[in-house]
Amino acid sequence: MIYIQETIDQLNQRLARGETTREALVSGALEAAAQPAAKSVFTKLYPEAALAAARAADAAQKAGVVQPALAGLPVSIKDLYGVAGETTMAGSIVCQGEPPQKQDAPVVARLRSAGAAIVGKTNMTEFAFSGIGINPHYGTPVNPSDSNVARIPGGSSSGAGVSVALGLSVAGLGSDTGGSIRIPAALCGIVGFKSTQNRVPLEGALELSRSLDTVCAMTRSVQDCITVDAVLSGAMLPVRRRPLTGMRLAVPQTVVLDGLDKTVSQAFDRSLSILSEAGAQIIEIALTEFADIPKVNSPGGLSPIEAYAVHHERLARAQAQFDQRVAARVMMGASVTAQQYIALLDKRRAWIASVERAMEGYDALLCPTVPAVAPEIEKLVASDEVFFKANGQMLRNTFIINLLDGCSYSLPCHRDDELPVGLMLSSVHGDDARLSAVALAVEDALRAHR
Amino acid sequence: MIYIQETIDQLNQRLARGETTREALVSGALEAAAQPAAKSVFTKLYPEAALAAARAADAAQKAGVVQPALAGLPVSIKDLYGVAGETTMAGSIVCQGEPPQKQDAPVVARLRSAGAAIVGKTNMTEFAFSGIGINPHYGTPVNPSDSNVARIPGGSSSGAGVSVALGLSVAGLGSDTGGSIRIPAALCGIVGFKSTQNRVPLEGALELSRSLDTVCAMTRSVQDCITVDAVLSGAMLPVRRRPLTGMRLAVPQTVVLDGLDKTVSQAFDRSLSILSEAGAQIIEIALTEFADIPKVNSPGGLSPIEAYAVHHERLARAQAQFDQRVAARVMMGASVTAQQYIALLDKRRAWIASVERAMEGYDALLCPTVPAVAPEIEKLVASDEVFFKANGQMLRNTFIINLLDGCSYSLPCHRDDELPVGLMLSSVHGDDARLSAVALAVEDALRAHR
Repeated sequence: MIYIQETIDQLNQRLARGETTREALVSGALEAAAQPAAKSVFTKLYPEAALAAARAADAAQKAGVVQPALAGLPVSIKDLYGVAGETTMAGSIVCQGEPPQKQDAPVVARLRSAGAAIVGKTNMTEFAFSGIGINPHYGTPVNPSDSNVARIPGGSSSGAGVSVALGLSVAGLGSDTGGSIRIPAALCGIVGFKSTQNRVPLEGALELSRSLDTVCAMTRSVQDCITVDAVLSGAMLPVRRRPLTGMRLAVPQTVVLDGLDKTVSQAFDRSLSILSEAGAQIIEIALTEFADIPKVNSPGGLSPIEAYAVHHERLARAQAQFDQRVAARVMMGASVTAQQYIALLDKRRAWIASVERAMEGYDALLCPTVPAVAPEIEKLVASDEVFFKANGQMLRNTFIINLLDGCSYSLPCHRDDELPVGLMLSSVHGDDARLSAVALAVEDALRAHR
Repeated sequence: MIYIQETIDQLNQRLARGETTREALVSGALEAAAQPAAKSVFTKLYPEAALAAARAADAAQKAGVVQPALAGLPVSIKDLYGVAGETTMAGSIVCQGEPPQKQDAPVVARLRSAGAAIVGKTNMTEFAFSGIGINPHYGTPVNPSDSNVARIPGGSSSGAGVSVALGLSVAGLGSDTGGSIRIPAALCGIVGFKSTQNRVPLEGALELSRSLDTVCAMTRSVQDCITVDAVLSGAMLPVRRRPLTGMRLAVPQTVVLDGLDKTVSQAFDRSLSILSEAGAQIIEIALTEFADIPKVNSPGGLSPIEAYAVHHERLARAQAQFDQRVAARVMMGASVTAQQYIALLDKRRAWIASVERAMEGYDALLCPTVPAVAPEIEKLVASDEVFFKANGQMLRNTFIINLLDGCSYSLPCHRDDELPVGLMLSSVHGDDARLSAVALAVEDALRAHR
């Protein structure tokens, strides 16, 4: 049961024609959020404020004032964004009792200024530190794509992904440090856009890894991602639509195609054929730099090092209150020296330069967002070994673009009779506008064959 | 025996009138560089290239082509800047055998593009890591301000300072991480300008502390500093001259006035009187944040942490070849963890915000650049204890502005019968243009009373 199935643009057309009201949409979304399918999606709801925003936009429209794209539409925000007067929990219980935020995070304030009806805060992996989306404190949102088996939603923006997939919001504000937007987008069958890190202010978001954290969102289409990005960043991307014909799309042959499961492999191959038939050049490139990542990102890894800097006092105070799988990963950063950290930053910079050179002359890199369809929740809950193996697998391809400080979309590329599979399109730092044009063209071609 | 005693502007006027040639100036500077007073000032000379640049500018002028300000004038560069084909030594011997630079550092290239006659590389504290200027490998340039006693030139840009003070160059390209431009400027009686860190590219300069290193220069006047900064940064500061009348100059009462020696104390008080009489408002402010610096900059300190990241392999390979006083300071960074380093960066950011708030409403901060006149070389060579105490004293006031990520001038404020004393004028990040206008006005007032 998907409540809102339309894009932001389609909704606004219906609203302009008077076929529905924002109040009705928000009220329906809030009702749907109370259904069993939406269990554990939200950690907190804001029904009054959301309905007030919807009614205000309806009234303004009635008075003849044209409304901006997000006005009065249901939007969710991930539990790690600061809301004035609330303590940011970020999917934890250890933050209970910490001081409340003095003001909204800038992106939350921007969503409010754009008129968005913020329906609630969404559940997440504790402190955003896994690609799985299991949360031992608040429950795990179930991936809506399989009615037979409870599969993971992907993480860390688990509730954000499911809130959009179930149509409880037109956009889910999340964050992407190693894939936390694109993994849920891929596993839940929606669109995720990880913009270049410095496009959107990080202030007011509980930090995981200052070098990698990106504030961004999931939606139902590439255009919706562009629309939401304009609100989050304060600057509409200058996207110039282009046909697929003549686009040069590179498929790296290192790491990202290893060990694909059958569904992913088939969907990916089929997507390449569709794009090729639509006129794009598909070019296999080596990109052997991808094999260097374990060496570049050692020891400890950027995220554990920087997460330990954020959480070491909480760990010293109450490690037992952590999700133990999160605590284990954060603790990997504890023993790293400043020299090693600085060396890692330098290795990363050199690696980025090298990858950027290898990517010259291509409009985007293509690969599967995640090498497998969503695994079952039960199996991952049961075994640390299975969990950590799956986590590494979920993050493997997406993390590459975070390390690159690049930008990246995940688009659905499965057929309706398949479990969701994401196609990842990526480019270098600051190439968001051009990549968005590529994503629009690719989305059109894939939709025509769905 | 000071060879060139005029400013860049005065020289260009003489050159335009045909009263001298650039070839004569450079040739005279090279001869003076061979005199005993200039011993240990240069680690390398470039007579052919410097004379060629001078002759080319002379010929161009003769052909009717107006020459830019630095064309054919003698300029020195600190031993830590990359020159194509040379191994950067940075006052060390441990770098011997390391690969040569593939290209000039951007600032060296910019000086060459501006036509400067680069006469040589100047001596420095090994790896730029002290404010004293003693170098056990290449000797210590003697401060020219006292013909009776061999006093330190100040560091780390020791040779740069003496090259300008002796008139062997119109500008000494140096660097300032904790005061390395302003300390030699103060102790040698010339002008030093530490611009905001991000004005001038750091590439090609052997790193000491990536968070603090600033590429900048010493000259004989504020206007010369502005002229040279335009070449180094690629952008002329939009300086709007203002009278002293009505300027609000703040004198912090915390830390920076502690334990001044008599010469410095008298010169500073006299300067304040002169500026006050000239119409400036002198306002004492507490600025208690300055007392927090030891806490903010702990453990280890930014410079040792970041220097250890640069030099740890050299230390592991050949610690005995280091200046042992430099090695001792770098090793203080060895045991710092990544978490502590990240915490330090965060403490610094919060401290900057707090100091910037306290500085609102003032045109500049005033204090002595260094709390004492130049100590005698012998005494510091003889005792580690005396050395490190003097080093802390030299760096105490200047370092504050590096930690602030601000900008700062040191202007001579002594009388001709006194040892040199520097008056430091400082402001916040990016305020270089306004601070330069203040410095021009202060320099005028001080000169009128010299």
